[in-house]
Amino acid sequence: MIKVSVLYPKAEDSTFDIAYYRDTHMALVRERLGGACKRTAIESGLAGGTPGEAPTYIAMGHLYFDSPSDFEAAFGPHAKEILGDIPNFTNVQPTVQVSEVIE
Amino acid sequence: MIKVSVLYPKAEDSTFDIAYYRDTHMALVRERLGGACKRTAIESGLAGGTPGEAPTYIAMGHLYFDSPSDFEAAFGPHAKEILGDIPNFTNVQPTVQVSEVIE
Repeated sequence: MIKVSVLYPKAEDSTFDIAYYRDTHMALVRERLGGACKRTAIESGLAGGTPGEAPTYIAMGHLYFDSPSDFEAAFGPHAKEILGDIPNFTNVQPTVQVSEVIE
Repeated sequence: MIKVSVLYPKAEDSTFDIAYYRDTHMALVRERLGGACKRTAIESGLAGGTPGEAPTYIAMGHLYFDSPSDFEAAFGPHAKEILGDIPNFTNVQPTVQVSEVIE
């Protein structure tokens, strides 16, 4: 199993509409990726690791697939539409990481 | 529910013993945090978001708690021991992020 993490950095002027992200963007993502996407998860950043420290990421979204090739095959045809929706909920560009789920 | 993410940055000379992390470090973490820690997850970084790009993080560990105060109460008394084990599996210092689980 692999996990595609979409990490939205927090900056001084960053904005993020978590309701739109959850209800509209992730619904679009799940619809377009279909059964290849086994699970999704969303988190909203609260804090860093020390008291009073801001979180590194204002929000994070995660998509699980059986393999990197499953992700690429599902995402590729819809990349333009999905990425084009990002400005509708945030003014920051995400960092993407593909990871192997160990446990 | 909150999620404490421990993100280990990938650098040119970074090392990470994922077997030790999974079998020894996370076992220690679960033992010390007890029932306050509802779930743990581990991932190993594979790639970034574009072809050939390295992952931002060489590995990630996640701990789930009911609240930030549950995390602080469980982690505080064992912080020194748990953090002191980090050099046994990696030469990098992690970034910690506390997030609210939205879904």
